Amino acid sequence: MNNNWGIAIHGGAENKTKKEISEAQQAAYEQGLENALIAGWRVLNDGGSAVDAVEAAVRSMENNRLFNAGKGASLATDQSIEFDAAIMDGKTMKAGAIGGVKHIKNPITLAKTIMQKSKHVMLCATGAEDFAREYELEMKSDQYFWTEEKEKELEEAKKEKDVAGGHDTVGAVALDRNGNLAAATSTGGLVNQLPGRVGDSPIIGSGTYANNEVCAVSCTGDGEGIMRANTAHEVYAHMKYKGLSLKEASQAAMTLYKDRIEGDRNFVAMDKDGNIEFSFETNLMFRACKKGDEPSYVAVWKDEEVAWENEA
Amino acid sequence: MNNNWGIAIHGGAENKTKKEISEAQQAAYEQGLENALIAGWRVLNDGGSAVDAVEAAVRSMENNRLFNAGKGASLATDQSIEFDAAIMDGKTMKAGAIGGVKHIKNPITLAKTIMQKSKHVMLCATGAEDFAREYELEMKSDQYFWTEEKEKELEEAKKEKDVAGGHDTVGAVALDRNGNLAAATSTGGLVNQLPGRVGDSPIIGSGTYANNEVCAVSCTGDGEGIMRANTAHEVYAHMKYKGLSLKEASQAAMTLYKDRIEGDRNFVAMDKDGNIEFSFETNLMFRACKKGDEPSYVAVWKDEEVAWENEA
Repeated sequence: MNNNWGIAIHGGAENKTKKEISEAQQAAYEQGLENALIAGWRVLNDGGSAVDAVEAAVRSMENNRLFNAGKGASLATDQSIEFDAAIMDGKTMKAGAIGGVKHIKNPITLAKTIMQKSKHVMLCATGAEDFAREYELEMKSDQYFWTEEKEKELEEAKKEKDVAGGHDTVGAVALDRNGNLAAATSTGGLVNQLPGRVGDSPIIGSGTYANNEVCAVSCTGDGEGIMRANTAHEVYAHMKYKGLSLKEASQAAMTLYKDRIEGDRNFVAMDKDGNIEFSFETNLMFRACKKGDEPSYVAVWKDEEVAWENEA
Repeated sequence: MNNNWGIAIHGGAENKTKKEISEAQQAAYEQGLENALIAGWRVLNDGGSAVDAVEAAVRSMENNRLFNAGKGASLATDQSIEFDAAIMDGKTMKAGAIGGVKHIKNPITLAKTIMQKSKHVMLCATGAEDFAREYELEMKSDQYFWTEEKEKELEEAKKEKDVAGGHDTVGAVALDRNGNLAAATSTGGLVNQLPGRVGDSPIIGSGTYANNEVCAVSCTGDGEGIMRANTAHEVYAHMKYKGLSLKEASQAAMTLYKDRIEGDRNFVAMDKDGNIEFSFETNLMFRACKKGDEPSYVAVWKDEEVAWENEA
């Protein structure tokens, strides 16, 4: 029995200011976070695994149009909608991941099914879709994901000849009652990205990592930068090989190689003792956590201090 | 000026015994390695970059049917032929990668083009093929890659209901005269793999990694295990954070988490001082290296000691 069990989630990190998000919008995000948090927490409370908890939390956000994952995914430059996702089990260090996959309602469940049912870690594109159909996972037509608002976002990004982070990525880390860590990340990619672009989310060691001995990490932010910097694995390496605390290691991984690697790196991380760290460089990170029977914390803005350190 | 410049390559690692490879076959592999080595070495000798050198070496092996990359790629379970590749520039820490891509003659050049010409790090499947066509990279029909022998290999793997490593993967690491490191890896995947399967080769920090401050690494072996273990980044982390030598760090990364992560991990690694390490658990690794104007070393079997350590 591990009394430090709990879950922490993020729904992306952005540089929006308080003027750009209405009170009603903020309340909707907070409700979406709370729902996802509780979906994952319930699994843990019932004695379920960290893997199932992070999946449940991420599924909840994938089914909520507010977040850029599943239903809320962004449009690529050709109007296609593609998903990246990964899950990692800190106990077995098994992992499942998908990149550039269309039509799947819950990308994180496809990643978990690959981890549990195949000999592979990562499947991409139509091969992953075929695998999803074989395991009878729910598929959706483009219409399920499409909105007029997304098309406007794409048009604006095209005008500016840029790719836009949009609403980023969702993710979760958890420590279950048996002391097992897990991490999960899911994204709909960047507005106006090239078709087939794979970001950091499904890359084990970059956007997603879990290892019972050390920590679990799920990132959001500039995917290309996070991949080049191997951010999730750097949090782990700083803890394991330099002996840093989760907080110190998170700070180090966030700022490493900034001279060479641009873009913001944001993540939620949890260590084997149940400490939680939300590290982000942006103005806001949609985030929430709940440790055991303690109350939930839900936060949006930087000035809302949320983390969990065990009493010394 | 850096006087420790040089290049090291591998053409895969296997558990075949000496009885399973004829003298003529071995000579052909050695010639193929020598050709690739010299293609890369010439770039360095002429003052070119480590990035261009590793690309040249890998292209040479991609164009040689003996190696499982480009022309020699394995057949997936549906007879399709898909490529994974990545390249990383240790100076800028920029990277380019592709996963699950068909029809591209030289996958490593597509990865380099993504690194240099796009805002992305990784493209998969048809999105990557469209990008290749836009940049007028050479595409080939399935006929160019297909052989009767590959079909037989696939049939045998299907009988045994297994995926087979086949001839593995090719890769190169280099240190140029300006002290810049680079790594490149390219593969045709596993015989009988699921369509869309992405292995470790294109995963930055798993199959491929380069960072001027520390080392460059290119892996071959059990792709799923290498991804879960983040092998390339572990070599780096052991050197940077534990202060180990290249040789010690390579040994540590090869054996880490063996209790949880099965499969062989093999790689070539080079540090910023030009030391070279070939680490492999298999009976053989097709491998070669050449430092400055020293003679080339080409080797196949484990009992042929090949590495390069600078004189103390």
